Amino acid sequence: MQYYRENKLTITGGKLMSVKKMILDVDTGVDDAMAITYAVADPEVELIGVLSSYGNIDAQRASDNALKVLHLLHADNVPVFIGETDPLDHKYQRIAINAQIHGENGIGDVELTETETSAESQNGVDFLIESAKKYGKDLTVVATGPMTNIAAAIKKDHDAMKMVGNITIMGGALTVPGNVTPVAEANIEQDPVAANEMFTSDLEITMVGLDVTLRTLLTKKETKQWRETNTEAGEKMADIVDFYIDVYDDIYPELGGCSLHDPLAVGVAIDPSFVDYLHMNIMVTTEHDAYYARTIGDKARLNDPETNVNVAVTVDKERYLKVFMDNFLTLFNKLK
Amino acid sequence: MQYYRENKLTITGGKLMSVKKMILDVDTGVDDAMAITYAVADPEVELIGVLSSYGNIDAQRASDNALKVLHLLHADNVPVFIGETDPLDHKYQRIAINAQIHGENGIGDVELTETETSAESQNGVDFLIESAKKYGKDLTVVATGPMTNIAAAIKKDHDAMKMVGNITIMGGALTVPGNVTPVAEANIEQDPVAANEMFTSDLEITMVGLDVTLRTLLTKKETKQWRETNTEAGEKMADIVDFYIDVYDDIYPELGGCSLHDPLAVGVAIDPSFVDYLHMNIMVTTEHDAYYARTIGDKARLNDPETNVNVAVTVDKERYLKVFMDNFLTLFNKLK
Repeated sequence: MQYYRENKLTITGGKLMSVKKMILDVDTGVDDAMAITYAVADPEVELIGVLSSYGNIDAQRASDNALKVLHLLHADNVPVFIGETDPLDHKYQRIAINAQIHGENGIGDVELTETETSAESQNGVDFLIESAKKYGKDLTVVATGPMTNIAAAIKKDHDAMKMVGNITIMGGALTVPGNVTPVAEANIEQDPVAANEMFTSDLEITMVGLDVTLRTLLTKKETKQWRETNTEAGEKMADIVDFYIDVYDDIYPELGGCSLHDPLAVGVAIDPSFVDYLHMNIMVTTEHDAYYARTIGDKARLNDPETNVNVAVTVDKERYLKVFMDNFLTLFNKLK
Repeated sequence: MQYYRENKLTITGGKLMSVKKMILDVDTGVDDAMAITYAVADPEVELIGVLSSYGNIDAQRASDNALKVLHLLHADNVPVFIGETDPLDHKYQRIAINAQIHGENGIGDVELTETETSAESQNGVDFLIESAKKYGKDLTVVATGPMTNIAAAIKKDHDAMKMVGNITIMGGALTVPGNVTPVAEANIEQDPVAANEMFTSDLEITMVGLDVTLRTLLTKKETKQWRETNTEAGEKMADIVDFYIDVYDDIYPELGGCSLHDPLAVGVAIDPSFVDYLHMNIMVTTEHDAYYARTIGDKARLNDPETNVNVAVTVDKERYLKVFMDNFLTLFNKLK
């Protein structure tokens, strides 16, 4: 099965590679900030826009954070759009754990330089649909927040979204416990109704969940290397991520590092061979009981010959971490 | 990774094959009856004993059923042992759903000829340990009831059990919902404490759970072929399994057949290539909450380089069903 399609070929550093037009749908968020950095840094990506969603923080502040991170990376040319600001069936309320994990300001309580650019006036969902129509199979969409924008886009123009070449999400937990409840992962738990609409649609979705992201860890050994570039970007990103690593050390001492949730989804969207997949049909529990927001095999479609979700279940973490670090260090060194 | 080891080579029908010494740990049970039949029928198996556990029915009646099924198959030479009769932390009580699914008598309310043989006086757990010591890596153990006997044997003589070449269980659900609660599969739910002790031991376990057994189905088209052998065994097994298929049609109309839970575990123990695996560390929730008896990735051992559970996650159902039917029809035709 092919998870992505190439759009054009280009020569970068003597290496023939395809460049993917990518839209990131984020709720920035420390690991969203890393996802943005990965997408800006990777030579195989042309980041055509960032969609801001609510989740780790409200949509407006997530948008401000995305703009500041792009500015830090000298990528102010990437437009930022605000999408849906609330889950489909209730009002967004930031929960305390998000301030604990991502800091009060969403990016580890690190102050980044204000930027003069602001979010575009076009609605993010409309930008997504417009891009789907424009680029079709050459477009890659990576969602690292709730699935509300994708569900809204599918509802508004299913046929346009059906043309998108690759939709990869960070979300869910199939073979490991959740991080909000024993069955619920945070992005899915923000809006289980939207996630269920997305998974049970006929769109092909690659799910990068806790199954692999809890196995893909970063430590201060790596962020120290960012600092050693002696760049503002390297220094500030290290500050942001060290905040996150400290929280992980408190909450998940057994892991020995922080999870690379969102940037792993970007990596997998670019190079699907970082992970192995189970090809399944997935549903999300939307009833308000102990199983709320669980991502699990859809029993009603268990024996369907067609499946639409590629669930990442194992990860080549060494190879991924190497590419992750190469991307980050190369970008920071360029910004000297 | 190798899931079983060959013990001896023999020529059967001109084909070189290994014959595995197998102990079946059953709670007979309609699908346990099929598991016994598969093991008796398969030319690569020497069934050296049947352990009777409680579960679908109490241990005494499960033992009686095993003896009658072996008699029906002209395999009275296989000794039957009674093992543990209760879960580790509570008393066994048959739940109503078991009478519904397996019939009041455990084998579809079909009357089989009484046999003159009776269960051995040796305790089943002791027989298991004795066999582990005697045959070591040449022994295959397949448990299709609760994990109580295996946990008891590990507790009593860990080193002996560690020598067993292949321990394959039918139990659990990792990527699909349970069949007792949204997270609990019936065999694990009988004794989650025992299951957790087994999974978190250092023994290598192959887990054949609902992930694959709900995809491996039998219909009356197949049982009709058993009847057409015009043998008592074919006729009676068809009566037993048709009862089960009717119940499945009522309870799980979406499946379109009955699940081959227990016989699939026997098949996988003989030919591991029927399924694909995730190699993981698994734990079972033993707290009495909504997640009771859930089989899930053990977060505390998620990043251990060593794993001890091979979880079957996909199945070549067509090839399995062909071998299953060949085995059953060949056996029935031999009993003419």
